[in-house]
Formats: sequence, C-alpha cells, structure tokens
Amino acid sequence: MRILIKNCNLISMSEKRKKYEEAIDVLIDNGKIKKIDKNLNQQNCDKVIDATNKVVMPGLINTHTHIPMSIFRDTLDGYGLQEWLNDKIWPMEDKLNEGDIYYASLLSCIEMIKSGTTCFNDQYFMTDSIIKATLETGLRIHCTRTLMDINGDGEEKFKELEELINKYAKYNDNVKINVGIHSLYTCTKQCVEKAVELAKKYNLYIHMHFAENSKELEDIKELHNTNAPIDLLQEYFKDMDLVLAHCVKIKPEEMNKLKNLNLSVEHCPVSNLKLGCGIANIKDFIENGINVSIGTDGQGSGNNLDMFSSMAYTALLQKGINEDARLLPAYDVIKMATVNGAKALKMDDKIGSIEVGKQADLIVIDLETEMTEPINDIFSNIIYNVKANNVVTTIVNGRIVMEDREIKGINEKDIYKKCTSIIKRLA
Amino acid sequence: MRILIKNCNLISMSEKRKKYEEAIDVLIDNGKIKKIDKNLNQQNCDKVIDATNKVVMPGLINTHTHIPMSIFRDTLDGYGLQEWLNDKIWPMEDKLNEGDIYYASLLSCIEMIKSGTTCFNDQYFMTDSIIKATLETGLRIHCTRTLMDINGDGEEKFKELEELINKYAKYNDNVKINVGIHSLYTCTKQCVEKAVELAKKYNLYIHMHFAENSKELEDIKELHNTNAPIDLLQEYFKDMDLVLAHCVKIKPEEMNKLKNLNLSVEHCPVSNLKLGCGIANIKDFIENGINVSIGTDGQGSGNNLDMFSSMAYTALLQKGINEDARLLPAYDVIKMATVNGAKALKMDDKIGSIEVGKQADLIVIDLETEMTEPINDIFSNIIYNVKANNVVTTIVNGRIVMEDREIKGINEKDIYKKCTSIIKRLA
Repeated sequence: MRILIKNCNLISMSEKRKKYEEAIDVLIDNGKIKKIDKNLNQQNCDKVIDATNKVVMPGLINTHTHIPMSIFRDTLDGYGLQEWLNDKIWPMEDKLNEGDIYYASLLSCIEMIKSGTTCFNDQYFMTDSIIKATLETGLRIHCTRTLMDINGDGEEKFKELEELINKYAKYNDNVKINVGIHSLYTCTKQCVEKAVELAKKYNLYIHMHFAENSKELEDIKELHNTNAPIDLLQEYFKDMDLVLAHCVKIKPEEMNKLKNLNLSVEHCPVSNLKLGCGIANIKDFIENGINVSIGTDGQGSGNNLDMFSSMAYTALLQKGINEDARLLPAYDVIKMATVNGAKALKMDDKIGSIEVGKQADLIVIDLETEMTEPINDIFSNIIYNVKANNVVTTIVNGRIVMEDREIKGINEKDIYKKCTSIIKRLA
Repeated sequence: MRILIKNCNLISMSEKRKKYEEAIDVLIDNGKIKKIDKNLNQQNCDKVIDATNKVVMPGLINTHTHIPMSIFRDTLDGYGLQEWLNDKIWPMEDKLNEGDIYYASLLSCIEMIKSGTTCFNDQYFMTDSIIKATLETGLRIHCTRTLMDINGDGEEKFKELEELINKYAKYNDNVKINVGIHSLYTCTKQCVEKAVELAKKYNLYIHMHFAENSKELEDIKELHNTNAPIDLLQEYFKDMDLVLAHCVKIKPEEMNKLKNLNLSVEHCPVSNLKLGCGIANIKDFIENGINVSIGTDGQGSGNNLDMFSSMAYTALLQKGINEDARLLPAYDVIKMATVNGAKALKMDDKIGSIEVGKQADLIVIDLETEMTEPINDIFSNIIYNVKANNVVTTIVNGRIVMEDREIKGINEKDIYKKCTSIIKRLA
C-alpha cells in the first residue's frame, strides 16, 4: 500500500532533518517511509491524506504497560499499594481467562491508537491473547511472559516464555518478545540467573521493575541478602541490555553504579504518583547519559495509557521538584516518548523517528482547537496542550489503524460492554 | 426558560443527597434548579436533554485565572520566571489594547466552556473587556482590576477598580467584582492598607498571590521590612475574607498562623510546577481546616484552563510527595473544584452543588469512551480519566452555553485567527 500524506507540518524527530518543517509531504510505501519532500506526486498512491495545517510526528512509544489491566482502571482509590494488590488485584487476576485477557487488551489497544501510541512494551501473562488482540488492531508490540518464583511456580513461566520466543522468533517487526523479570523482590537469585541465561541464549533484552518504592528495596535486601540492592544490577546484569521501569528510589550518589550498564530507564510518572511511590528525579539519569523513555504503566495504577498526559507529567514534575523552569524543554520530552523509546526497545534503526527507510509509525495531530490555539511554540503545544483527542489519524507499519478518529472494523462500544461484564464477574 | 435533563447519573456534590444517584431527572427553571427526582414530567419544558448513561455534575469553578493570557500560551519553555516576565510577557502586555483583551478573553471562555468550567476568578487589567467577552459567552465571572504600586502608578488602578465595583454593584450574580492585590512584593504597605479599606467599604473579599516561590518571600522581606512574610497576613488582613493563590512556600510550622484568618487557598498545581516554584503541600492546609480550591492560573504558566487536568494533578501530586496512595480520595478533589471553589468566592449558597434552589451551573459528561471504560469508580474516573472533550453540554445560570460540544453563535476558528494575529503583532 502506498500512502501520501500531503502538506503536513512535520516534526520528524530525525537528527538529520530540521526540528520543524512546514507544508511538506510524506510518502509511505509498503510499510516504510519512502520519501519526504515538498510537492510529491500523488500518482500511483492508493490513498492520499490531506494534512494541511496538521502536524505529523512519530507515533508514541509507551515503554511500560500491562495492557490487560484496562479492566482494573480506577480500582485503587483509597488503598495502599500492598492492600490493593493483596485484597483486590491478585484475587481477580487469579480468575482471568484467555478471553478476558483478549478483550481487556483490545480495549487498551483502542485507547492507545486513539491517543497516538503506535508501539508498547508489555509485561503480563497469557501473552498469546495479548498479542492476538494487538495484531488485530495493527499496533506494534514488545512483550513477555513475566517471570517470578517466590510463589514457587517459576518453572512453568519459563516454559511459557521460551515457547513464546520460539513462536514469534521469525515473526515480522510487529511482535518482539523480551525477557520480563517481574522484580528482584519477587525473583530469587536462581530465577534471575536463569532469566539472564535465557536472554543470552536468544539475544534478547531484559525488562524489569526496579526501585519503584522504599518497601521494595527493603524486600530485595532480605531476599538477596544484600545491603545495597543497586549493586545487584551490576552483579546480575553485566553486559545485558536492561530496561528498568520506575527507578524512583535511586539516589543521586548511586548514579555512578548505573553508568557501566547497558541501561534504559522507563519513567512512569503518573503511576509513581498514584501509588504513592514518589517522583523519580530523571534529571539525574539524563545528566548521567542514561537513556530515559516514558511509560504509563497499567491502568490499575496509571489510570490510562495516555502518553500525552505522561509526557506533560514528565516535563512538569522535573521543573517542579528541581525548582527550575528551564529544565526538560518540550522537544526533549517528545524525544523521550519517541526516539528514546525506540532505543530502549533496541529498535531505533526502525522506529522512533520519521526518516526515509524507517518503518511508517506516525500520527496526524489537529492543533486547530480551543486548547492548542494560538500556537506560539509547537513543541510546548504538543507536550502541554495536546490531548488524546487531538490525534486524528494513526498509522502503524504503513497501515492506517485510525482515520479521522475512527478505528475501522471494531465496534468500540461492544468492547466496553464486554470489559464491563468481565470486571463484574471478577469482582 | 425551563430545561429538563432526563435520566442522568447525578453527582450533585450536595451534602443533603447521596454521593451518586442513577437515572434521575433535573429540572431547571428560570436559571435555578427547580426539582431533582425520578421521572419528572416534561410538559411545559422548553428543552429536554436526554442524559441517559451520562453523568451530570456541578460546573467546575476555576478560582485563579488571568484569562487574557490565552495568547501567551506556550511562551515559557526554556525561560526562568523573572526572565520570562521581563523579556517576554511585560513588554507584550504594555502593547495590549481593549480589543486584544476582548478576543483573548473570548478564546479563554471557549476553552473553559468546552472543558466544563462555569465560573472563574480572574486577575488582570482592562477588566471591562474581560467581562464583556465573558457575558457574551454566558459564563459566570469573578474579577478585579489588579492593584500594585511598586511601579508608582497605583492611584489610577484604584480608581479603575472602584469604578468597576460601582458599575457592577447592582448587576446579577454573573459578575462579581473583588479587590485584587497583585502580591506583597509588588504592593507597599500603604497600597495594601488602601486596598483593605476599599474591600471593607464595599464588603468584598481580597484575592492575592502569596508564597508562590522563594524569591517572592525574599522580596517581601525587603519591601515590608520583616523577617516573617507570613506574619503580614495577620497584620494586614485580620477579619478580612482572603483568597490566596499558590501558597507553595508555606511551611508546616507556619500553618498555625493561618488558622485565625478567613482564608481560602487557591491551589494551582500545574502553574507551580511549570514555573519551577515547587509543589504546595495542600494536605497540610486541609488537615488544618483551611478551605482549598483549585485554579489553573493563566495559560502563560498554566498552559491551559483545563480544570480536569488540574484536578488530576492535585490528586496525584499529594499522593506522590507524601508517599501515601490513600491521600485525597477522588470525591474530595471534585469537592475542591466545585463546593470549595464556591466557598472561596463566597457564593456557596448559590453555586458549587446541584441542589433545589441553587443556580443551575452544571455539566453533562459522556463516560462511554475508550479512556473511561469500564467504570469501576465513578469519582476516580472523573478525576483521572475524564478529559475536557468528555464534557458534552455546559449550562450556566440555566442557560445552555454549549450543547453536544457546540457553542452557538461563536465561530471558534475566527477567534483562533484573531488571537494568532494579536500575538504576531505583539511579539
């Protein structure tokens, strides 16, 4: 399929191009960006999208999700984290079946498509059903079968993950499996070592929660018999590609222990606030040259999968806690949600920016709205004022998955009803 | 005009009613709530609004704005506060004329109506043009002519304010003038005392910025020759109704100095973050029985006038900085943006909740959307997932100012163009 996007204002996020280009065309052919130039010929195109006055930018990359948790949206209020997990979430998760996971994932995919996300990195279980839903909607997925062993059933999880890896090994770039370790407070040393072995065997990166809150660090100390959980990163994951969600409780003086790791940090500001974990000072990571991407976490803690909201929280929180309005310019935050996300997922040669030869993951945004006018700074506008509903069209891998806010082939209200019936059954 | 809202799910915020009521009707007559009950008769109604499956709640009250600053949206990125004011904002403000103020205010009114705000409390100048725009759109306004005298031209400002007070003294409840003191770092003792006199003369409350950042407190110390700016509140404003925006830099141990004041705090979390001021620990105010409402501040610092966004920041920040997920339940935050706002503006007998006899300021919200389904907790849904575009209908004083997201009689795109041309001229 050959798609021509006519006359857009382009934020390509490519280092080779200007930061902002007006009235330019983008030609997509067979899933990839073929040409970017003024006045491209629309002959032989299957589809022409008029993007006059609209902004085209890379699709957002949400690097930390648990998408079947859409059905647990808004169940946290008034609970502490442990209480919420023990009394509400885990008993319900025990009752989930493959059909539940499929529909809950479908709802999340709709949410992501309608808020401009084109790729995400998920950690959950019954992963095949998550992938099924994702592929039906056209989104790009990185995922795993989450590993942990403190409850004793580690073996089965490893088996499921290795099956997934083999099943999708030769699949196209729309599905990538990684090795998901839940955390160092739910995985023994033996489990972690086995996970690292698996990652080495298939040359995969490791995706793990780390330093989300103070309690977690205490539990790690006990389980791994250490006084310094931060040292375990070097001990267990030397030379591995490591993607760590949260990193709220890493102290400035510990930064030097992270520098020698192949590390990306997935910043999840909304979830970290909601769970009362605190605020990660990502300024420190950035100053230490560590790649920082953005995640929403699951809807149970993160409320929604809205990356525009998470970008705004990212930008605002750092200015606030460091009492410096000049920190984290808007352009840098867009980079975190696109280029840096792609880097975290080891796909920066393929996605994250709009460049000739890269895969066509992009979104079209309408800025002619009451909350985005007048436009004084295009990047600030995107970070602080654009809402999910400003996204009009979403394209993944050269496929139009939403056009003029309509997702073809899916009856959204049916999915809402299905999800409502699931949560009613579980509760 | 007689309007019947049929079959809504009601969050009335009235202490006399249940927190949430399903499938109920609300009858509005001549600007006021006439009846709330099941199956009301629709005979003799001029208009019936079917609100099946939709939520009706009080219109949001934005207690701190500078609405002509819509045109300065997104001008802050990369600047420090003082630099931004000195180099960008003040030179542009000097060139503003009444027409600019009118159109810039109109844009803000559109923004507020479309995001569910029905009443706001503004501080700026050329206030007559702000009121003109507001009344044309149907919103309810509290406002002032901001007073300050360190630049020497205090007299003229007092004259303008007293004229405003007299002009609108006998006006209906849609326009209320208060005494706006810019701040204690821009007003001498003499200016403050004169403002207090004026407030006493007309029995008005005082609206002032206070303790927004550390630099301000240093400047107050110098100008007012004191070591404790907090003590000036008691000294200057004893027995006055006082509404203070920001209050970021008030320490826990200073709380006891606030208790004897007739004080409301206007929490502006987004602006406070964006300007690098910090995060007000409003938990402390609430625990000390101080009324806390929510404001967006102007778009220059606050990005937009989206009260749904500011409610979410309010709820999330307190949990995050206090590391306690149980703090500030969603219902309490809705209260801050409705009932507490009305209290701050001394109008809690007339607005802030949906009760028989109160003025009909209310909004209709659609929750059947990808980011709000499934609905596990209605109050959390409203705080964390509802976006401006979920508001379908806005009613102020019994007048439908927006229906199905359409504001009748205003060409929104013309206003955007007008505002763009203003900022181009000023820059």
